[in-house]
Amino acid sequence: MKILVINTGSSSLKYKLFNMEASSKAVLLADGIIERIGEQKGKLTHTIFKGNQKKRLARKENIKNHKLGMHLAVNMLIDRETGVIDDISQIDAVGHRVVQGGEKFTTAVIIDNKVKKAIRENFTLAPLHNPANLTGIEVSEELFPGIPNIAVFDTQFHQTMPEKAFLYALPYEYYTKYKIRKYGFHGTSHKYVATQAARLMGKDKDKLNLITIHLGNGCSMCAIEKGKCQDTSMGMTPLSGIMMGTRTGDMDPAIPGYLMEQANLGTRELNNVLNNKSGLKGICDLSDMRDIHEASAKGNDRAKLAIEMFTFQIKKYIGAYAAVLGSVDALVFTAGIGENDDIIRAKVCENLSIMGIEMNLQKNSSKAIPPFSIHSKNSSVQVWVVPTNEELEIARQALNTISQDGRQDNLL
Amino acid sequence: MKILVINTGSSSLKYKLFNMEASSKAVLLADGIIERIGEQKGKLTHTIFKGNQKKRLARKENIKNHKLGMHLAVNMLIDRETGVIDDISQIDAVGHRVVQGGEKFTTAVIIDNKVKKAIRENFTLAPLHNPANLTGIEVSEELFPGIPNIAVFDTQFHQTMPEKAFLYALPYEYYTKYKIRKYGFHGTSHKYVATQAARLMGKDKDKLNLITIHLGNGCSMCAIEKGKCQDTSMGMTPLSGIMMGTRTGDMDPAIPGYLMEQANLGTRELNNVLNNKSGLKGICDLSDMRDIHEASAKGNDRAKLAIEMFTFQIKKYIGAYAAVLGSVDALVFTAGIGENDDIIRAKVCENLSIMGIEMNLQKNSSKAIPPFSIHSKNSSVQVWVVPTNEELEIARQALNTISQDGRQDNLL
Repeated sequence: MKILVINTGSSSLKYKLFNMEASSKAVLLADGIIERIGEQKGKLTHTIFKGNQKKRLARKENIKNHKLGMHLAVNMLIDRETGVIDDISQIDAVGHRVVQGGEKFTTAVIIDNKVKKAIRENFTLAPLHNPANLTGIEVSEELFPGIPNIAVFDTQFHQTMPEKAFLYALPYEYYTKYKIRKYGFHGTSHKYVATQAARLMGKDKDKLNLITIHLGNGCSMCAIEKGKCQDTSMGMTPLSGIMMGTRTGDMDPAIPGYLMEQANLGTRELNNVLNNKSGLKGICDLSDMRDIHEASAKGNDRAKLAIEMFTFQIKKYIGAYAAVLGSVDALVFTAGIGENDDIIRAKVCENLSIMGIEMNLQKNSSKAIPPFSIHSKNSSVQVWVVPTNEELEIARQALNTISQDGRQDNLL
Repeated sequence: MKILVINTGSSSLKYKLFNMEASSKAVLLADGIIERIGEQKGKLTHTIFKGNQKKRLARKENIKNHKLGMHLAVNMLIDRETGVIDDISQIDAVGHRVVQGGEKFTTAVIIDNKVKKAIRENFTLAPLHNPANLTGIEVSEELFPGIPNIAVFDTQFHQTMPEKAFLYALPYEYYTKYKIRKYGFHGTSHKYVATQAARLMGKDKDKLNLITIHLGNGCSMCAIEKGKCQDTSMGMTPLSGIMMGTRTGDMDPAIPGYLMEQANLGTRELNNVLNNKSGLKGICDLSDMRDIHEASAKGNDRAKLAIEMFTFQIKKYIGAYAAVLGSVDALVFTAGIGENDDIIRAKVCENLSIMGIEMNLQKNSSKAIPPFSIHSKNSSVQVWVVPTNEELEIARQALNTISQDGRQDNLL
């Protein structure tokens, strides 16, 4: 069974085609990313995998909209040269990443008009993401008539949070009336790496307490008790929690209003500042951690400060989530920074023996391909580096959703 | 030497008169509170202390403004019936609580025109508090010509925070241009109880790592390493950190803008909601924890939820600050809720053995007058209940400031 996974951003489209016949052992056949949709110079990167070999192809061309982007992707998949399937009809299902599922979705679902309506209802909560996700779904419906489309929501894993964790201390009616609460994001990633970590530890994931630390362009953390999310750092939107590449993270709620007055900003400009000009970039003018390390090594004080702030904030969340969980079996680092940046991992875990965390610095700086563990023998909390794979998790959930028994955890 | 301490709110005025002759052993001679200044029915409560006896007097009258309020207070202090001194001239110095000192003040200072200018410059940062504080100072200058007025700032104790703790991940220029950073408040209280706790523990305060937990109408926490504040929960304003009686605490920074749009609020209304209609009150319509316990005991679910949220948030800060400090010698509970509410203390410390915190529930529910300790024999972290006394701390710092050597810690 072949499952195509689609992740549509506002100006990008990522896809992965999996062969899922072989039960839980999915085989990646091809993937690709289409960038700068709608801009002058669009870009497609397409890779096919055969056994241990892979073949990459990059192409620049004007890609007017998501529909044309999707056509392009499908053509790459069925082309004699670049393709991995003969025909569109070989695709059995399409799994879509949808950012905001609100309180309606606690698992993946087959997309029908009701689901599309619900995704549309959450536009106000995720104005940048849900519209793009819905576009991807609609193009997919056109392109693959009669094939099930499955939505996998970034928020669904966090729906187990208790009220004490997801409510803000605002007038209660703002929750019922305007849906203001913590939803959390990156749920697909947190769930995936939690499951992988449990496997690597040789334990049942429903018996483990984990703190998962997703550090990519967006950053979030999750306190997982016996397989269930108890708290997460992102909130109503993906702006809060830890500071990120260009996003602020948590702040005094008096600041947005103060800033509007002092800097004479409208709400749109304010949102732009908080989302795109803040975070690491706000502090040191760089948003990519690799560039920041380079600048820091050259003596750039602001770059050093950005690293200090970033790791300080993550460290505080580890402490907070240890308190939430009461006992912790493992920390799990994932995503771009989490998987590759041993300096950040070392700074985050430094001086945390009070909660039983002790890192093996040699293991931490290993150049091996993750997954691997990086804790010392004496550490009562294990520390793991686990690559995330949101698309694989979406494919698994899509397959599981369309399979008859519907028990979601069958394949995990 | 007699020192009068003044704490001016927007519609209230608190005062305490200390005799500080006897070195560090200050004697409280009288105190009082004037409420509802400017309203139809003002209220004065005045108490005098003689040895172990005290005499209280309450009076209702129209008190037009702070100046008349201060006159009233002084008259009570020198009156033959209610007074404790013969004449105004017996007052040697007046210590003033000032909320926002910005980055200029790291210790108490004798007030001159420059200091008043600096207090005025911080009006935008503390629009409710600094103007009232300055009014108190100006009235005091009129009433007690030639006597030194000393400002003790709520923010000064937190000025030792490192940049990584006090900066927000906003464009750096917002810090330099608009002074947007974490200042922290309740500093006088945190410093006072940290000093007291060290004494009670028989240790040098400069060798202890403490987490001080001030839970009153306003709530804040402080991570203190060897006597120096490393982080605190309140931020640029006293709105952030833990949820409070009517204040939100931390939130996703996207919420204020979203709320303005959804609920059609202007910035003034928004501020009113965040400051006066949120927190415990927002969740359960009650802001006083005693009322909330009563409602909770009667089965009120929202009151239960408010308690759950409140204690969950404090618990997370304890974890975060344990991570900041690396090792913790003691938690110190203080202020109205912290000193009196054993249910809250128990819920906060429950299931924190991961960081070496174990409470003795019997000690915790002691009806003794604090200070007392409430940890179990096996707890590696001590847990103390210590009454705060901001006015005494202000009097001490005032005395110290006007004394020749100026070494602030002499009396502590």
